[in-house]
Amino acid sequence: MELMKMTMHEVNEYLKTSQTIIIPIGAIEEHSNALPLGTDTITVEALAKRLGEISNRIVGPTINVGNCHSITYDFLGTISISPSTLVNYLKDYTTSLHKHGFRNFFFVNGHGGNIAPLRCSFDELANTLTNSKFLVASWWLLEDLKELYDNSGHAGRGEVSMIMYIDKSLVKTEFLTEEKREIPRYYVTNDLAKKYITETGIINDSQEGSYELGEKLFNASVEVMLKLLKHLEES
Amino acid sequence: MELMKMTMHEVNEYLKTSQTIIIPIGAIEEHSNALPLGTDTITVEALAKRLGEISNRIVGPTINVGNCHSITYDFLGTISISPSTLVNYLKDYTTSLHKHGFRNFFFVNGHGGNIAPLRCSFDELANTLTNSKFLVASWWLLEDLKELYDNSGHAGRGEVSMIMYIDKSLVKTEFLTEEKREIPRYYVTNDLAKKYITETGIINDSQEGSYELGEKLFNASVEVMLKLLKHLEES
Amino acid sequence: MELMKMTMHEVNEYLKTSQTIIIPIGAIEEHSNALPLGTDTITVEALAKRLGEISNRIVGPTINVGNCHSITYDFLGTISISPSTLVNYLKDYTTSLHKHGFRNFFFVNGHGGNIAPLRCSFDELANTLTNSKFLVASWWLLEDLKELYDNSGHAGRGEVSMIMYIDKSLVKTEFLTEEKREIPRYYVTNDLAKKYITETGIINDSQEGSYELGEKLFNASVEVMLKLLKHLEES
Amino acid sequence: MELMKMTMHEVNEYLKTSQTIIIPIGAIEEHSNALPLGTDTITVEALAKRLGEISNRIVGPTINVGNCHSITYDFLGTISISPSTLVNYLKDYTTSLHKHGFRNFFFVNGHGGNIAPLRCSFDELANTLTNSKFLVASWWLLEDLKELYDNSGHAGRGEVSMIMYIDKSLVKTEFLTEEKREIPRYYVTNDLAKKYITETGIINDSQEGSYELGEKLFNASVEVMLKLLKHLEES
Amino acid sequence: MELMKMTMHEVNEYLKTSQTIIIPIGAIEEHSNALPLGTDTITVEALAKRLGEISNRIVGPTINVGNCHSITYDFLGTISISPSTLVNYLKDYTTSLHKHGFRNFFFVNGHGGNIAPLRCSFDELANTLTNSKFLVASWWLLEDLKELYDNSGHAGRGEVSMIMYIDKSLVKTEFLTEEKREIPRYYVTNDLAKKYITETGIINDSQEGSYELGEKLFNASVEVMLKLLKHLEES
Amino acid sequence: MELMKMTMHEVNEYLKTSQTIIIPIGAIEEHSNALPLGTDTITVEALAKRLGEISNRIVGPTINVGNCHSITYDFLGTISISPSTLVNYLKDYTTSLHKHGFRNFFFVNGHGGNIAPLRCSFDELANTLTNSKFLVASWWLLEDLKELYDNSGHAGRGEVSMIMYIDKSLVKTEFLTEEKREIPRYYVTNDLAKKYITETGIINDSQEGSYELGEKLFNASVEVMLKLLKHLEES
Repeated sequence: MELMKMTMHEVNEYLKTSQTIIIPIGAIEEHSNALPLGTDTITVEALAKRLGEISNRIVGPTINVGNCHSITYDFLGTISISPSTLVNYLKDYTTSLHKHGFRNFFFVNGHGGNIAPLRCSFDELANTLTNSKFLVASWWLLEDLKELYDNSGHAGRGEVSMIMYIDKSLVKTEFLTEEKREIPRYYVTNDLAKKYITETGIINDSQEGSYELGEKLFNASVEVMLKLLKHLEES
Repeated sequence: MELMKMTMHEVNEYLKTSQTIIIPIGAIEEHSNALPLGTDTITVEALAKRLGEISNRIVGPTINVGNCHSITYDFLGTISISPSTLVNYLKDYTTSLHKHGFRNFFFVNGHGGNIAPLRCSFDELANTLTNSKFLVASWWLLEDLKELYDNSGHAGRGEVSMIMYIDKSLVKTEFLTEEKREIPRYYVTNDLAKKYITETGIINDSQEGSYELGEKLFNASVEVMLKLLKHLEES
Repeated sequence: MELMKMTMHEVNEYLKTSQTIIIPIGAIEEHSNALPLGTDTITVEALAKRLGEISNRIVGPTINVGNCHSITYDFLGTISISPSTLVNYLKDYTTSLHKHGFRNFFFVNGHGGNIAPLRCSFDELANTLTNSKFLVASWWLLEDLKELYDNSGHAGRGEVSMIMYIDKSLVKTEFLTEEKREIPRYYVTNDLAKKYITETGIINDSQEGSYELGEKLFNASVEVMLKLLKHLEES
Repeated sequence: MELMKMTMHEVNEYLKTSQTIIIPIGAIEEHSNALPLGTDTITVEALAKRLGEISNRIVGPTINVGNCHSITYDFLGTISISPSTLVNYLKDYTTSLHKHGFRNFFFVNGHGGNIAPLRCSFDELANTLTNSKFLVASWWLLEDLKELYDNSGHAGRGEVSMIMYIDKSLVKTEFLTEEKREIPRYYVTNDLAKKYITETGIINDSQEGSYELGEKLFNASVEVMLKLLKHLEES
Repeated sequence: MELMKMTMHEVNEYLKTSQTIIIPIGAIEEHSNALPLGTDTITVEALAKRLGEISNRIVGPTINVGNCHSITYDFLGTISISPSTLVNYLKDYTTSLHKHGFRNFFFVNGHGGNIAPLRCSFDELANTLTNSKFLVASWWLLEDLKELYDNSGHAGRGEVSMIMYIDKSLVKTEFLTEEKREIPRYYVTNDLAKKYITETGIINDSQEGSYELGEKLFNASVEVMLKLLKHLEES
Repeated sequence: MELMKMTMHEVNEYLKTSQTIIIPIGAIEEHSNALPLGTDTITVEALAKRLGEISNRIVGPTINVGNCHSITYDFLGTISISPSTLVNYLKDYTTSLHKHGFRNFFFVNGHGGNIAPLRCSFDELANTLTNSKFLVASWWLLEDLKELYDNSGHAGRGEVSMIMYIDKSLVKTEFLTEEKREIPRYYVTNDLAKKYITETGIINDSQEGSYELGEKLFNASVEVMLKLLKHLEES
């Protein structure tokens, strides 16, 4: 069930039995020359729809553009909403839904730069949106996917696989490279950090991405999220 | 060409010959019990994609949620981004694109409440985004569609037809009504204005919507927008 | 009745019978070398005062400076309040009045750049200033003046006539020119748009301005506004 | 010379010899039942015009509405712009003028609540508006007027006299009272502070206001301000 | 009693008998080569602690960094919070305390640039933090210290003495100079004003600072503040 | 070396050899009835000073108050700066330092609610503060402390030990309890989350805190941070 395709009447019916909404939030960000700029958004939209189907929960309109103000901001094609604006955007978005009766907000997140603004928006609403619960599920950080994902980085094996599974035509395989880079354990947020991204825009890639791995990552993500969704509703 | 599905490399190629981007901006707003909440967004996304195809121009990620802070804010399912937030959102969005080299911003707009924030964002950027040009094409306000559209209002004949043409399954025809209401020539913006919307959420509807009218409106819109796009690029 | 010249006591008396306030909003903007920078403000202040007299309604303090952030921002003498600031200014202004009991806000507007910020401020207040009604009457856009005004543009025949009628000494007739420029039907908001304004700061001028036309425009404006004021109060 | 009545051409001529602008800033605030709500604004506008005449300096558009967010906010007729908005308003106002070449900003201030926002706006611009100088002359605080003004408070002898001198018809003498109240030396800013204002809205009044005192106060203010203006230009 | 060192339980006990909190607010600002950057903060923290002890009132966490956006902003070591941010910071700080039951806010201020933001924050809260009272005691401006302080300026005899009394080791006496500068009676806020500060960062200094004068200034400050604290609580 | 106690001259000397600054950021937040409200701030201030000593690096003024807008906001004594304000505060703070030549910003953080605002502030500055590097070391999250800290929660064994080591007198041992609570693996940010905190304000406490554990945690933290500081400077 996608909110965008539902009518006022159908939302009315839905709210009689559930106060939960699933919200996909991604990014428009360079993902090397091989993956589409919308990699994060395309992934979370697909995950959220599947999750919505199997859980019978409404999926809100996708938040297409996220915060890429550091690191990839200067790479061609990246569109970034600043953290401050994104915080306000999230507050307006969830406040509207809260007014209608939604109380459980489940974010399917596809981009690291969104985590801080999401948290800030919840904190600022904590004393306003009474009885609300928020949970952010960033698929690549899910504990249960740790082994499968195996620390593959930005535009790397994990993301390549996900997009291959969702829409193979979007991967320009001729641009996949064999670059592997060690990411420092303690992250230094700065414009120098860009040195971890070469001209190809890849942090820790490999050509090992595959449809099969994508299928596994996708299904495992949905499975874990389903549990988290119940956790959210029951907490 | 959708930016979201393109790679960094493809954007690079594109920018060698064109500095234009088409940006669909809609709304998530009650549209009676017959039309989907995403009526405005669904319409502009379809229009923008068609326009992008025939003009060979990039279409940016859809701005799904717009400003519905007055009039329909309290109707079930409406999600609204406040004007102030939307202005900042638009500024961040276009500033990113400007940095990459885009100069001609063509907005395909589907919602009245977006017009003021769009204008405010352009004004605030006028002295920053050098050499840029902005044009907003609100399809239902296009001069050349005047006769076809025939002043059909919110959730009315025009919008019904558009959605019928784009995706018939999204129109719950059993909820279409025969309500017709005269809209005052001079609009009073206020919470009392809500009296022009009955419980059905319709301002000036009719059951006269049809696939055929939708097809005509859609094609006429695209045709006019193609001219405006050229006007933007050449001005 | 001007609020600025009234006492607390007199406002108290007024509010017993009316909840209406007329608010003139103009601009400080270059108007060629022939017209004063305050053309818009001088015009709306005169219109509002006349309207206040014949309607027996309070006129609030004039909003002297408006939004000129695009187009004329760089012309000598233009003072501009950015859209964001103007929105907040309007919110503070009307919120104070609402607290005292005013409910009907009638704006006599003299400048195009104010329309979007006015709308944004109403939208943001729609759910806060309960039972309030806002109407913006931009004199040069009034339907009934269409023929008289005849599409004369910025610093053109219409404005020249208005100022001639209000205070002839303010028109430096030696600087009136014969420039006529066709304004594009679809407006491109950008810094390039400045090409429609020559060094003289005129968009679509003519020397045809006259006291007589000014008198007609002025009186017709007041007449229409009186109707709109009643429409606001009765809606 | 009032900027509002001058043309682009005249400003151009002026800037060849002077970079100074005089800006009156007042308030719309209850001033008992005897004085007009615009007492502060009417006073500074008159002072600024006189100062402009004798100094041959441009007077900018009056800032009619000031910050009355504490103390008198709830009194009938008071309109208040919040400090934050006023700071931004002042920044936009002076930034426009700075762009045209103005460097010396002389504020003729009539209201205590404006002092803090004025200072905040200067501080925020200090590193942006290069080579600029700001001076605020609050007439009732001028050292040289100390004896004449004799600590008369809000809506008191001093303000009564000023308005009597400027426009006698604006003083409703039947509402003047004999109230005298001692104002605490250390001011406690709070909503309880309102206890120093009775229902009549007077802090430290007397019926001793007169045209003669007004004339003295007015002329002495202008005289001191003329010195300060030179001090500003020469510093 | 320092709030920072107290437990939740102890605050609970305190609020049963008092609603007062003392808040030190200083600055990190160059104070010549002789005095520490934290001169203002160190001074008010010491004053506030002493005041807290003798009055048996809670001292809130020190606001270490203040507004130095003009004048000393470019001097090495100065850290400045912009007026707008400081206003919001103060609003958040006092709003938290108000929620817990604090009503009397006594600020021990050590820096001129904080006065305007403090006032702005109170004004914006005046209608929100009900029944609250605010008083700012800027030690160097206290009437009763006038003679002792004798108009010694920034980084001058008065501040030297204070720091000598509080912690002698913090004064690098070898850098004390004999500079004396006349400060203009009417202050011109601008970047040119910096001419009153030489490279040594001193406005109106002298080597006459001493432990003895510091002791007198400190004790006199505390004595006056104790009276003002009672005035605040009783007003 | 504490910036607050240093003179302009000393900062000048320092910057000749290092561009690094250590900034402690804590919180004023209930920490049960046993620990002081400033637990987080007291801890990071002590850690930062030690780190500054052994690394010979400057320690900036402590950021005493952090973001506690969710979870503990309503507990007595908590003072919270909203995320939005904190982001602006951090931007002003680091921008001042950047202007003077600091480039390596090492934050010693003691509070979870600060992590998101810190990240947001860095992101917003990424394209402004050129050549800057930021690293946040949240002591209780350091990988190398994992075993020692052993997942002790808010106001729990870890924090008790730290304060015991830093200043034993600040721990009111009579209020230590034996409460142990399992914290859900996936955190639900909301006002319901407060159910994990009982009236005692403890999330996952125990009486097992000790001076000895505090000493180990403190020294281990400093040791790891010293490595991270070098990592920051060399990256």
